[in-house]
Amino acid sequence: MLAYQDTNGRLRDNFGMPIGSPARQEAFPRLLSDLWELDPDITFLNHGSFGSVPEPVLLSSMRWRAHVERRPIEVLARRLPALMGEVRLRVAEFLGSRPECTGFITNATAGCNSALAAVDWRRGDRVLFLNHGYNAVRQCIHHHAVTRGAEIDIVDIPWPVRCSADIVSRVLGGIGPRTRMLVIDQVTSPTALVLPIADIVRGAREAGTLTLVDGAHAPGMIPLDVSAIDADWWCGNLHKWCYAPKGCAVIVPAERQRDRTHPPVISHHLGRSFADEFDWQGTFDPAPWLCAGDAIEFTVSAAGGTLRERNRRLARWAHDMLCARLGESPLVESDADTLLGSMACVRVPSALRRRFASAAEMQAWLHDEHRIEIPVIDFGGWHVRLSAAPYNTNEDYERLARALSA
Amino acid sequence: MLAYQDTNGRLRDNFGMPIGSPARQEAFPRLLSDLWELDPDITFLNHGSFGSVPEPVLLSSMRWRAHVERRPIEVLARRLPALMGEVRLRVAEFLGSRPECTGFITNATAGCNSALAAVDWRRGDRVLFLNHGYNAVRQCIHHHAVTRGAEIDIVDIPWPVRCSADIVSRVLGGIGPRTRMLVIDQVTSPTALVLPIADIVRGAREAGTLTLVDGAHAPGMIPLDVSAIDADWWCGNLHKWCYAPKGCAVIVPAERQRDRTHPPVISHHLGRSFADEFDWQGTFDPAPWLCAGDAIEFTVSAAGGTLRERNRRLARWAHDMLCARLGESPLVESDADTLLGSMACVRVPSALRRRFASAAEMQAWLHDEHRIEIPVIDFGGWHVRLSAAPYNTNEDYERLARALSA
Repeated sequence: MLAYQDTNGRLRDNFGMPIGSPARQEAFPRLLSDLWELDPDITFLNHGSFGSVPEPVLLSSMRWRAHVERRPIEVLARRLPALMGEVRLRVAEFLGSRPECTGFITNATAGCNSALAAVDWRRGDRVLFLNHGYNAVRQCIHHHAVTRGAEIDIVDIPWPVRCSADIVSRVLGGIGPRTRMLVIDQVTSPTALVLPIADIVRGAREAGTLTLVDGAHAPGMIPLDVSAIDADWWCGNLHKWCYAPKGCAVIVPAERQRDRTHPPVISHHLGRSFADEFDWQGTFDPAPWLCAGDAIEFTVSAAGGTLRERNRRLARWAHDMLCARLGESPLVESDADTLLGSMACVRVPSALRRRFASAAEMQAWLHDEHRIEIPVIDFGGWHVRLSAAPYNTNEDYERLARALSA
Repeated sequence: MLAYQDTNGRLRDNFGMPIGSPARQEAFPRLLSDLWELDPDITFLNHGSFGSVPEPVLLSSMRWRAHVERRPIEVLARRLPALMGEVRLRVAEFLGSRPECTGFITNATAGCNSALAAVDWRRGDRVLFLNHGYNAVRQCIHHHAVTRGAEIDIVDIPWPVRCSADIVSRVLGGIGPRTRMLVIDQVTSPTALVLPIADIVRGAREAGTLTLVDGAHAPGMIPLDVSAIDADWWCGNLHKWCYAPKGCAVIVPAERQRDRTHPPVISHHLGRSFADEFDWQGTFDPAPWLCAGDAIEFTVSAAGGTLRERNRRLARWAHDMLCARLGESPLVESDADTLLGSMACVRVPSALRRRFASAAEMQAWLHDEHRIEIPVIDFGGWHVRLSAAPYNTNEDYERLARALSA
């Protein structure tokens, strides 16, 4: 359970319901939001970009760093393989992946690099990518595939988006005879759509196309069974919606791709085993990886195990409230229950938009004038992309609504 | 200046000279060694493998992490480019490199990966590598060059080593008409030799051979002027002898190689500029990089600016003392003043060696029975590789001498 204080100092739960009795107030000795170190002067509505770490996980990372500084060789050379083996089991259980196919990396983009470097690109190969795709991954495709003779095809998903079925049919319709690989987000970055990835990957596999799923935002945001998706490569961050420290992510190749998949930094254990190669990519700070188990524990058990569902509901509430208050039609025309997770996009009213030369300028205005941190994105029209994290409360979005109605 | 307490609790300087007067004792409110969090129950003689971080730098890294957690977007998205620009200037000044050719990476091995990936390897190319070379880098060569048709040639430097001139002539003598690249350590890992890298690189350049210098141990251990070396690629760690947190290293390509050199993880800024590409390799913990300036400040100013020279003298003293006490001839037959830095190798007496089945077993015995952390290395004969870091004192090596004479 979680709570926030309203303007009268009264505790309310995150859907605004008062937590009445003093006895019940005592059950909340600390607000959940107090676990984060975020600047209280800023209304922080951009958990999605880099995540943010709650106190128990932050303390776990500090303890690991203290262990390393106390006995560098003992921890990094002698104990690390066993420690990583343990944490890998926990992460694999959470993701529904096979431990022997679960490798630690710094971020999902690093995993996309590994996957794209594993393919023997041939001249004339085509890579299918979405107009909603992530710019950094497009750069990876360019570096690893285009420079070796491949070309990129873009499939356009209309925005506002129509429905799940329309997305599936458009993506699969974009696969041609030369399409070697489909590179697709599980949750899109500029538009915050939870794509129907299982159906898409199944269709691509039947068409004989390799699949790379960038699940950067997926772990902790949506229920996951990575093995069941059966993409050739899947990667995801634990530092966003699993609240791990920055630099904690995994790559999961299908077993059929495992032996040709290597980490971005080759070190001592090349050819020994997939796990060994990924566990040691040269001297580094292993704290973000070693506290992944604690981060997952927090994700699944904090606030009575309600975090994921609570984030989703809060994002949806904020989305519906903002659309209504601003008089804007939703950017997701139907299937919002499946297409939205703990982020959502809302159009910027045209009267407000006219006041700024660029989306970046409007974003700076929200930050500087209203102390609200939220991305303003130009994607064939401007929208804000809101995040709903455990430290956010209804009042945060009310404040946003007031700013956007100004 | 620095000090240690002798067995009577009396302060002595690191060469054993008593610091007599109480007034002078007051000038040392804390021992330099108190700045490290190392377990006081362990005699830690292996700074070389992963380094170790003194309090001022540790605090700097904690402050940066706190800034990031307080305002994630402000620090990581808006301020990071300028912050990295500042720290790059400081690091480049220290290394003698050009800032626009200085890229941050996690460790020197990551830099070797970037350098080796930048070459368009052709079938029949040969890579020259030393028998004293680092295993992880040999694996990099295999992954990036051998899989694309190149072959590795090994040049043998005798051990015990004769003299600097012998090393130069053997390495340059190993360059043949097909030698595309020489990959060489500035300070060797198994044998702790400071190689005459300037002469070697000059000779290789005159022979038309590309050069990759792995200066993993060099920054802070030896005077550096990276631009003057003029290797095609140079990389080095700041987390060893510059006392930065683990994960702080740089790659410096010559300007002629810069545009084809990319970080291990491609992200948003591909093709923008070398610095931009390296500064952002996906979401990560920038603290080890952001405190590089503080680490260098510590390196050059702590103990009155004597750290480097003091480490070198202490290593040499320990080396000479151990050879004498154990009755072993030095592994460096001449030129010890130039071939030794802040690490040195000493033969394991044969009587002791006979008690163990392997070097690893003897290393475990030193750790478990004598609480001494030092690598025992099998390199055509067993030796210990000692490090001399600011927290080490003469007494540490006396303890080692007693253990090895047992």
